[in-house]
Amino acid sequence: MSNTLLPEKHKLSLNQVQINDDFWNHYVSLVRNTVIPYQWEALNDRVPDAEPSHAIHNFRIAAGLETGEYHGWVFQDSDLAKWLEAVAYSLQQYPDATLEQTADETIDLIVQAQQSDGYLNTYYTIKEPGKRWTNLYECHELYCAGHMIEAAVAYFEATGKRKLLDAMCRFADHIQDVFGPQEGKLRGYDGHQEIELALVKLYKVTKQEKYLQLACYFIDERGQRPDFFEEEWERRGKTSIYRAGQTPSPSLSSIYNQSHLPVREQDTAIGHSVRAVYMYTAMADLARLTGDEKLLTACKKLWANMTQKQMYITGGIGSTHHGEAFSFDYDLPNDTVYAETCASIGLVFFAQRMLRIETRSEYADVIERALYNIIIGSMSQDGKRFFYVNPLEVWPQASASNPGKYHVKAERQKWFGCACCPPNLARILSSLGEYIYTTEAGRINCHLFIGSESTITLDDAVQVGLKQVCSLPWKGEASLELSLAQPRSFTLALRVPYWCDGQPQLLINGEKEDAYTIENGYAIIERIWTDGDTVTWLLPMEAHLIQASPLIRSNAGKAAIQRGPLVYCVEQVDNGTPLASLSLQSSTKLKVEADADVLGGTVRIEAEGFRDATAEAWASAEPYRRWAPTAEPVALQAVPYFQWGNRGVGEMAVWIRVRQ
Amino acid sequence: MSNTLLPEKHKLSLNQVQINDDFWNHYVSLVRNTVIPYQWEALNDRVPDAEPSHAIHNFRIAAGLETGEYHGWVFQDSDLAKWLEAVAYSLQQYPDATLEQTADETIDLIVQAQQSDGYLNTYYTIKEPGKRWTNLYECHELYCAGHMIEAAVAYFEATGKRKLLDAMCRFADHIQDVFGPQEGKLRGYDGHQEIELALVKLYKVTKQEKYLQLACYFIDERGQRPDFFEEEWERRGKTSIYRAGQTPSPSLSSIYNQSHLPVREQDTAIGHSVRAVYMYTAMADLARLTGDEKLLTACKKLWANMTQKQMYITGGIGSTHHGEAFSFDYDLPNDTVYAETCASIGLVFFAQRMLRIETRSEYADVIERALYNIIIGSMSQDGKRFFYVNPLEVWPQASASNPGKYHVKAERQKWFGCACCPPNLARILSSLGEYIYTTEAGRINCHLFIGSESTITLDDAVQVGLKQVCSLPWKGEASLELSLAQPRSFTLALRVPYWCDGQPQLLINGEKEDAYTIENGYAIIERIWTDGDTVTWLLPMEAHLIQASPLIRSNAGKAAIQRGPLVYCVEQVDNGTPLASLSLQSSTKLKVEADADVLGGTVRIEAEGFRDATAEAWASAEPYRRWAPTAEPVALQAVPYFQWGNRGVGEMAVWIRVRQ
Repeated sequence: MSNTLLPEKHKLSLNQVQINDDFWNHYVSLVRNTVIPYQWEALNDRVPDAEPSHAIHNFRIAAGLETGEYHGWVFQDSDLAKWLEAVAYSLQQYPDATLEQTADETIDLIVQAQQSDGYLNTYYTIKEPGKRWTNLYECHELYCAGHMIEAAVAYFEATGKRKLLDAMCRFADHIQDVFGPQEGKLRGYDGHQEIELALVKLYKVTKQEKYLQLACYFIDERGQRPDFFEEEWERRGKTSIYRAGQTPSPSLSSIYNQSHLPVREQDTAIGHSVRAVYMYTAMADLARLTGDEKLLTACKKLWANMTQKQMYITGGIGSTHHGEAFSFDYDLPNDTVYAETCASIGLVFFAQRMLRIETRSEYADVIERALYNIIIGSMSQDGKRFFYVNPLEVWPQASASNPGKYHVKAERQKWFGCACCPPNLARILSSLGEYIYTTEAGRINCHLFIGSESTITLDDAVQVGLKQVCSLPWKGEASLELSLAQPRSFTLALRVPYWCDGQPQLLINGEKEDAYTIENGYAIIERIWTDGDTVTWLLPMEAHLIQASPLIRSNAGKAAIQRGPLVYCVEQVDNGTPLASLSLQSSTKLKVEADADVLGGTVRIEAEGFRDATAEAWASAEPYRRWAPTAEPVALQAVPYFQWGNRGVGEMAVWIRVRQ
Repeated sequence: MSNTLLPEKHKLSLNQVQINDDFWNHYVSLVRNTVIPYQWEALNDRVPDAEPSHAIHNFRIAAGLETGEYHGWVFQDSDLAKWLEAVAYSLQQYPDATLEQTADETIDLIVQAQQSDGYLNTYYTIKEPGKRWTNLYECHELYCAGHMIEAAVAYFEATGKRKLLDAMCRFADHIQDVFGPQEGKLRGYDGHQEIELALVKLYKVTKQEKYLQLACYFIDERGQRPDFFEEEWERRGKTSIYRAGQTPSPSLSSIYNQSHLPVREQDTAIGHSVRAVYMYTAMADLARLTGDEKLLTACKKLWANMTQKQMYITGGIGSTHHGEAFSFDYDLPNDTVYAETCASIGLVFFAQRMLRIETRSEYADVIERALYNIIIGSMSQDGKRFFYVNPLEVWPQASASNPGKYHVKAERQKWFGCACCPPNLARILSSLGEYIYTTEAGRINCHLFIGSESTITLDDAVQVGLKQVCSLPWKGEASLELSLAQPRSFTLALRVPYWCDGQPQLLINGEKEDAYTIENGYAIIERIWTDGDTVTWLLPMEAHLIQASPLIRSNAGKAAIQRGPLVYCVEQVDNGTPLASLSLQSSTKLKVEADADVLGGTVRIEAEGFRDATAEAWASAEPYRRWAPTAEPVALQAVPYFQWGNRGVGEMAVWIRVRQ
């Protein structure tokens, strides 16, 4: 590894940013007041009618506080880790002595379950003692370690308490003793990437380069030949934890966990989508910290492939439930989609890391697209139900009766046996402050327009207070009020969102100001700033019809409605059934109307369209007849995608046929 | 069972009908000269690069002529039976001493493999001796028996040779000894329906009512409670031949094999589609022969549900590859479709049996739809490759790279490990003559317009010769020349196909004749017929756009092109890619043009349409942008669906977007 670590474009730590936003406060407080407590109940198997998690039980057994058997997935520990990480972010923003005490006790439990040499994994401790590190292909030991390291870092940053951090340093040291290219060490890596990005975080708070080096090792080793998973499988006797008898070679599915090629040779997003984006995130981290150009080139190619050819308009990724995976370029079916919540959260992680390398609006645009659509849409308005799969088209009867769509739930579910998504959602929503700004030398970049109060240290010297007041996503206005001890020259860069038609308006202290340039999608405002200066960013927020690339066959002849960052959809509750009978008039005016009475407040969009003759008007029983379509004009009612499915079960569609 | 068996509306036996048709001769001779010999090679594992069948080997081992292990599916015997049945039909039309000798030797082999008590099944004889009838749920013993009975009946009818027929009577007698409601017998039935319709055929040639009673027993018993398969599974120790360890109860999937309800209570086509239509065929047979009104009512409901709500425009049935099954009403996806060839063949069987109960054109219309589209389309033009799944929309890259479409092959395959379809195809094409006419008292019904020479015995007395000359499917003309020893009054009923706009023209001896009535979709011509009378039936054959019921969501906004009985499709080879970029102009004229040079002769249809801006014209790398569609006029080239995929691998689509 190069010794010349690059200077970091800072992300701001959470205690420098306090969210205070008309729109997002709801989500932040929902996470704090509902999701975190609810998930705590879930982790303790106390949610009625939901599949039990077993996570706390497993830790108690491993800690010797209970007897019993291990239950749950092999990676069940990570649910507790993700919950704890979310708690840390929440505490950092909103101190809460009771919650902190629960977290402290949980940490005590975790540390009790840790083995004397630093190893921690309740599955192996309870169920397979003595078999550690014999099935990295399936068993997620390093994945779980990574999540616990992330939790430890976050908890340390939130509270200053080192107990879990120290424990995870011991674990990381143990991992370093076990893994590596050196003679006598296990030359392997995990079947599910995660440890890599976690070790970068551990490096960041501890400043210990050994953790960065370990992350580099895992990234560099992945995909080398001979195939580690193949050799491990042979050593193990070709067994699997999921099936009796001998199993096929892992080398047949190396694409699944992105070990098919050395990472620097990968240019197409492929395989299990969460594994992919977690790996890309670490690759971007390491490219930034080590200046590895080849790694950066791979990141850019993977980013371009994924966001230009394999991303849904909602920010969803992963077209197939088989392996929860990418399929291939432009294959984006709306109805058999996977688009796992966790995958889009990982996409946001990756975008954030790319943004720390280069301030280009495409990265923040994707963060915004995913946040406002798929991510918050995956949660019910009451914060108690979640989508794991986020479809763009739902026909509830097909979800119930066509096995190819069983994975597409027509309503959000309470909790999942494989419950990766809800705690992942909690941790991203409670760390929202990390995504708003970055700094460079003499420059503050504003990526997201989210009401907040921040204190930014510029060039390690100057304190700049930024109070942002926003009306997104309902209105296209954001203003930033600066606090400065004394006038100071620096650059403020404001993202020009892709949806504002390149027509933003800048006001400084209420006066129109054109003295800025556009660079990589940001308005670059260079100026001597004075305490109390107010920057207002007016972003045209017209509702538009959107079309998809002609190579995305599933959207041919269809349009989506978007206004600002929000993608819209039509629901059966507003438009009747079947939704497929509806078409948009291509010349439609889109009527935008705030409606405070439904969905906890929304902005509806009404479009001119048509409804094909319904079943009642279809005279014969025959399913096919000569072409004689009849359609009547109808006003289509669209609501933001993120709010769908909160008014009972029914059909939903994002892409609507256009009548030209 | 009622003792009052009803008089049968006759089907004609094959030696009364000789196909001689410009269109069908090709298929009949392809089956005779290519498919039957090719399949014989396949059954003997002599086709290079194709999965071996093992069928003959298994019989040789069971007959004690070889040693070795059983290979292939548990129902591998049935492939040989279906081949033999096809051979019988072929011999009946075209005597062939060499082929007959091969068949005779095969029958010798089969009889050698039969056990002394009449039992015949090579899987149980070789692999699980002593375990007969312990796993009817999975092991297809009665299914294989049924196919061998069908072969025996056909071979007897073709050649008059009784060896296999007698052997199968012994087998049926053995089955009767084993199964039944009587104390001490096994009160069960097969996991895959087939024996029921076969026993009806055995009754027909032997006139032995015991076989009809046994068929009734199997039909009546199915779906009764307690659940036979559940009890059998418990007796067996809850095992499966497909998995080690204990398996879930069969009662969880009783829909799959239609044992979820007594058959008379079933009104929706559900579960494995081949099982379903084989059962409905037997139900219709028994309803006709026993006058069971409840059974007939169930048949009518099932027919209506299946053909009005669950049938593709090509005559395909079964929307999902999960369980090769029906899904639910109006769920007819074009791309993830199953539409197994065998299922449509079974649909034709069912339609034929309904036609013997009541002369209604809807039954023959479906036979014609399935024959001219899915059935002949499942075979390559050279008769050597076959589709098992018959999609209405193909994107080859999706078939290769999206696991949800792996089952949809973009090209016909040589042979299948589970090779039910090719021999089923051979037997229906070589027995085509059975579907053209039926007789009733004083009446001859003409259902299909296929060139042929027939001798029909009317009212058990009068011989009527019918020479049919047809130009379908390319031109809408059929003529029938009658031969009669002396003038005779009777009714000739000609089907009015659904596609002729209700505007057929009748000529008798070249003169326009309006003196007929329409009854249940047939033109009823009552007349004193004289030797040499010629009836000409002119059927308008305009090309039309077809629309689907608005409840079939996958076809919303789309049209198919049909001309006469032929459904058309667009292929990449004629229209470029992506096909989804194409749209039809709703007001298009459809230009019909014969083209002798491609596809061994076809009639192309050219339509006015548009092509959306292609990928090259899509300026940015972004997958989504503001609605600004551009499309250029283009002439769409359509070819008959049955001919698709014979000019290399490419995209194909039946349903095309309409630009209104």
